[in-house]
Amino acid sequence: MADELFCKVLSIGIKCRECEDRRANVRLTVESRSSSNPVHKKELVVRLSDDTDPFFLYNLTLGEEDFQSLKNQQGLLVEFSAFPQRFIDLLEQCILEQEKPVPRFLLQLAMSSNALDCMPASLNIIETNPFKHLIHLSLKLLAGSDSDVKKYLATCIKNLKLENCTLKEKLHKSEEDLSKRLGVTQQ
Amino acid sequence: MADELFCKVLSIGIKCRECEDRRANVRLTVESRSSSNPVHKKELVVRLSDDTDPFFLYNLTLGEEDFQSLKNQQGLLVEFSAFPQRFIDLLEQCILEQEKPVPRFLLQLAMSSNALDCMPASLNIIETNPFKHLIHLSLKLLAGSDSDVKKYLATCIKNLKLENCTLKEKLHKSEEDLSKRLGVTQQ
Repeated sequence: MADELFCKVLSIGIKCRECEDRRANVRLTVESRSSSNPVHKKELVVRLSDDTDPFFLYNLTLGEEDFQSLKNQQGLLVEFSAFPQRFIDLLEQCILEQEKPVPRFLLQLAMSSNALDCMPASLNIIETNPFKHLIHLSLKLLAGSDSDVKKYLATCIKNLKLENCTLKEKLHKSEEDLSKRLGVTQQ
Repeated sequence: MADELFCKVLSIGIKCRECEDRRANVRLTVESRSSSNPVHKKELVVRLSDDTDPFFLYNLTLGEEDFQSLKNQQGLLVEFSAFPQRFIDLLEQCILEQEKPVPRFLLQLAMSSNALDCMPASLNIIETNPFKHLIHLSLKLLAGSDSDVKKYLATCIKNLKLENCTLKEKLHKSEEDLSKRLGVTQQ
């Protein structure tokens, strides 16, 4: 069972060793998932995808134990339960700033090189003040394997088919209304 | 460049060693493709997919040389250029017969065991007469790898998005017509 906490398209700076820095619009999804085995284990899933490129996929699954080491490494002061909302607050900050000529908060994806070498990429939330770049958070995401991408695309297809179905129903209803209305007018 | 020659949902008998025989509705696509390297090389692509199961995928890519050995093995009397249409004629025969209580022509997919062992499955077109089962054609198809499925699903998504777009446009137009019509009536 997955509970979607955040799902928005954001402007992100992409930095990789072998290509020029560029900006891209990327969909960032945050989900809370309870794995069934062992019972009551909660996980946080962070996913980067691109609506225009079905093969672009980066994933992080963060369990409570992983979070403890993240907390120690990066000196975080919140608990696992409060972390998702704080992370989302930071993302909303980035959205507020992304249209400004000199944004104070920036989202960055730093890749070691191309996605094929399976090295993790760092998703960084960076505040720039007059003195320095402050990294508020840095998460390690893995490029999706063929199998990950396959499963992700299957979910997309399910959702697209649902949307398609709803549109067909609406269109049918609208056309029915129209022909009724035409009937009334002609009488 | 791919040219779609046939794309229909057919009833197919699925036979595998470790599970019971069953019937399923499967989409069979036949495409003619010219590969760009070397120039003017034509290939025939046969694909089995399932509209209700995004992970079900079997593929065959048949080049002219592969066809020569198929021709020798199975004693075919047609050339590569005429083969696709003869194959499609046989498929149409199966469709004509599939609703009958005792179909004379049957499409069968025979798998050695589960799809994970990467053994090819045989797509057979079988005529049953009072004396015996006659195999008119037997093609070896490979279960799609994660990478194959990924690419196939990306194409499905592209098509679904296009369909979605068209539906949205139609709906918009229909609603516009309706509100215009309402305006006229109220005057």
